[in-house]
Amino acid sequence: MSESIQCPGFQAAGIAAGIKKNGGPDLGLIYSSVPATVAGVFTRNQVQAAPVLVSKARVAQGNAQAVVVNAGNANCCTGDQGIVDARTMADLASAELKLAPEDVLVASTGVIGAPLPIEKIESATPALAAALGPEGFEAFSQAIMTTDTVPKLVQRRGEVDGRPITLVAAAKGAGMIRPDMATMLCFVCSDVQISALLLQQCLKRAVDRSLNRITIDGDTSTNDMVLVMANGLSAAKVYTPDHEKIFQALLDDLLTDISHRLVKDGEGVTKIALIKVQGASSNAEALRIADTVGHSPLVKTAFFGEDANWGRIIAAVGRAGVPLDPHKIDLFFDTVQVVSQGRWCGQQAESQATTVLKQPEFSITIDLHQGQGVDSLLTCDFSVDYVRINADYRS
Amino acid sequence: MSESIQCPGFQAAGIAAGIKKNGGPDLGLIYSSVPATVAGVFTRNQVQAAPVLVSKARVAQGNAQAVVVNAGNANCCTGDQGIVDARTMADLASAELKLAPEDVLVASTGVIGAPLPIEKIESATPALAAALGPEGFEAFSQAIMTTDTVPKLVQRRGEVDGRPITLVAAAKGAGMIRPDMATMLCFVCSDVQISALLLQQCLKRAVDRSLNRITIDGDTSTNDMVLVMANGLSAAKVYTPDHEKIFQALLDDLLTDISHRLVKDGEGVTKIALIKVQGASSNAEALRIADTVGHSPLVKTAFFGEDANWGRIIAAVGRAGVPLDPHKIDLFFDTVQVVSQGRWCGQQAESQATTVLKQPEFSITIDLHQGQGVDSLLTCDFSVDYVRINADYRS
Repeated sequence: MSESIQCPGFQAAGIAAGIKKNGGPDLGLIYSSVPATVAGVFTRNQVQAAPVLVSKARVAQGNAQAVVVNAGNANCCTGDQGIVDARTMADLASAELKLAPEDVLVASTGVIGAPLPIEKIESATPALAAALGPEGFEAFSQAIMTTDTVPKLVQRRGEVDGRPITLVAAAKGAGMIRPDMATMLCFVCSDVQISALLLQQCLKRAVDRSLNRITIDGDTSTNDMVLVMANGLSAAKVYTPDHEKIFQALLDDLLTDISHRLVKDGEGVTKIALIKVQGASSNAEALRIADTVGHSPLVKTAFFGEDANWGRIIAAVGRAGVPLDPHKIDLFFDTVQVVSQGRWCGQQAESQATTVLKQPEFSITIDLHQGQGVDSLLTCDFSVDYVRINADYRS
Repeated sequence: MSESIQCPGFQAAGIAAGIKKNGGPDLGLIYSSVPATVAGVFTRNQVQAAPVLVSKARVAQGNAQAVVVNAGNANCCTGDQGIVDARTMADLASAELKLAPEDVLVASTGVIGAPLPIEKIESATPALAAALGPEGFEAFSQAIMTTDTVPKLVQRRGEVDGRPITLVAAAKGAGMIRPDMATMLCFVCSDVQISALLLQQCLKRAVDRSLNRITIDGDTSTNDMVLVMANGLSAAKVYTPDHEKIFQALLDDLLTDISHRLVKDGEGVTKIALIKVQGASSNAEALRIADTVGHSPLVKTAFFGEDANWGRIIAAVGRAGVPLDPHKIDLFFDTVQVVSQGRWCGQQAESQATTVLKQPEFSITIDLHQGQGVDSLLTCDFSVDYVRINADYRS
């Protein structure tokens, strides 16, 4: 990235606080020079980490001015002490930044169950605040990584009512990803001026179109959250339907880009596949089928093996719990049709499909010819390295 | 096995017909010298292979006298020709055995979508019938294997009303196993005398307690079936509740043994884990949690890595879609408690849990302390070899 990624009025930082075993950067901070409206979506897991509980309550206020994040420890299943530690982590940052405690949001990611090493965070917070700068998003995005191999940091620029606006998103992903309202950690900053209510609506829609349409391994995290802070410094007001449409499109595009990067850098991923279902009786049924196919270990291992094993896809379609007529199913690998009306199109089509699978990215289209329902899910393959990474994660 | 496995009045055989690429045995036959009552449970996949459709209709008659099975080709997604081929496969056997066509059941397992090589089956059927013998169950159980590394053949003996009875089961498994009414192929022979209605009831109950409580990879096959033939030659009549109880217990035990062998020989399996859930609000919710934990890729890869990563288990419990209080959860690896009231029991407990995971078999007990609901699921780890086997399956 030749040009540094910045967002007017925001500063960010990332440093090593000694939480990660490997000594890498593991503590990040984003700060807005003025109060910002906030919105957030959080994991639907019944087991929620302490920082999720703390931040959820603070987002409900509609305003915040900073977010502090650590990697290497999820602060989950840590009982009452976990809540105390999450609040302390935010308090330490708020003291450095001269903010009220409730104006600081908090997030954690990493191993579940171990107590948060709050003393390390306490020692490191002054240096973290001192490191803040407009060009600090790169360092921030590195500090929130766990098994990610590359940071995820993207930017979009646009114009609302004649004024330039900026959106920046930093995210971490890699594993334990089956979005349900949110996926892993994602932090969005913008300089638009917008109400907390409208920001929440825009975020929910954008997440449903992007982060809620990807999967890596089907496990929902206890720590997922997407937070947006909008500080209004562009003086571009988002309140008419036209403005909202522009902002929504930029936010959708921003989070779609982030989503794609999350899947591409998923644990052990060698292939990305967009599972498109059409002709279903409803959109919900289309999603259910895309979800079943996109999570099937047999489908995902076949992708890894570059094996156009369409039989496994059809078998997954059949077990999705959706009533359907197997004799109507058409199946395509990119534009290559391998199944027509439930039957194999022959060896030549399959050879062409195998060529499709040799690409790093491809689409699978399943047409049920039953109705108008459509939806899609971005998934990945299931590789030997996925197993290796997750068998050794804590050792 | 020092003593050969036999069942009075039944003969079996297994030979190589050239369907499998490796030239191994791939065509099997079981024959009863007298008409037998039959019962069956079949896959609930909406996409059902041709032999499933043909056998389901014939089982509904309540009687049969033989079953012919091939491995190496599933005869699924093969359209009308598939149905013709499945019937022809049964017809060829019925002609050799001098039976009516509808007295022969048919099953297939293997790659989905390729046309059944019926001419190879036609050429091989006379030799198959000629190979029939009371000691042929071993050969039969080898001929139905796909990625199985060992045949699954078990026997139980008991007594009903003063007469000795025998039950024999042969099964194949290995992958694409998430039972839903049935799992893969399993063939049971017995010499009891029983009505088709009662046999179906006993089979349904036994399957719910055994084959429907195991998983390997969560993919339901298009070809699953469990068939039971009872030829009555023991003259032991199963009709009083006491007789039924004895027969049910033997059938439960037989299929539980088979189930255990199927998981143990699952693709790439190095660990077997019994996921026990108790204290749930209902048995259904207990099963839902066991199912979510037992299918979690992160839990299963941690088992492979012998990592007592209980946080992943708690995270899977939380995403099962069951309302629960995270602060009440207790978690045990065998008898070692690692989580008490939602909190970690400390490093010593975790070290002991790691020792538990070094065993080839162990249990995970999750107590929600919410009610009386209990259920369990037998699952396995997710290994590097699972991915290798399934990436290369067709090549």
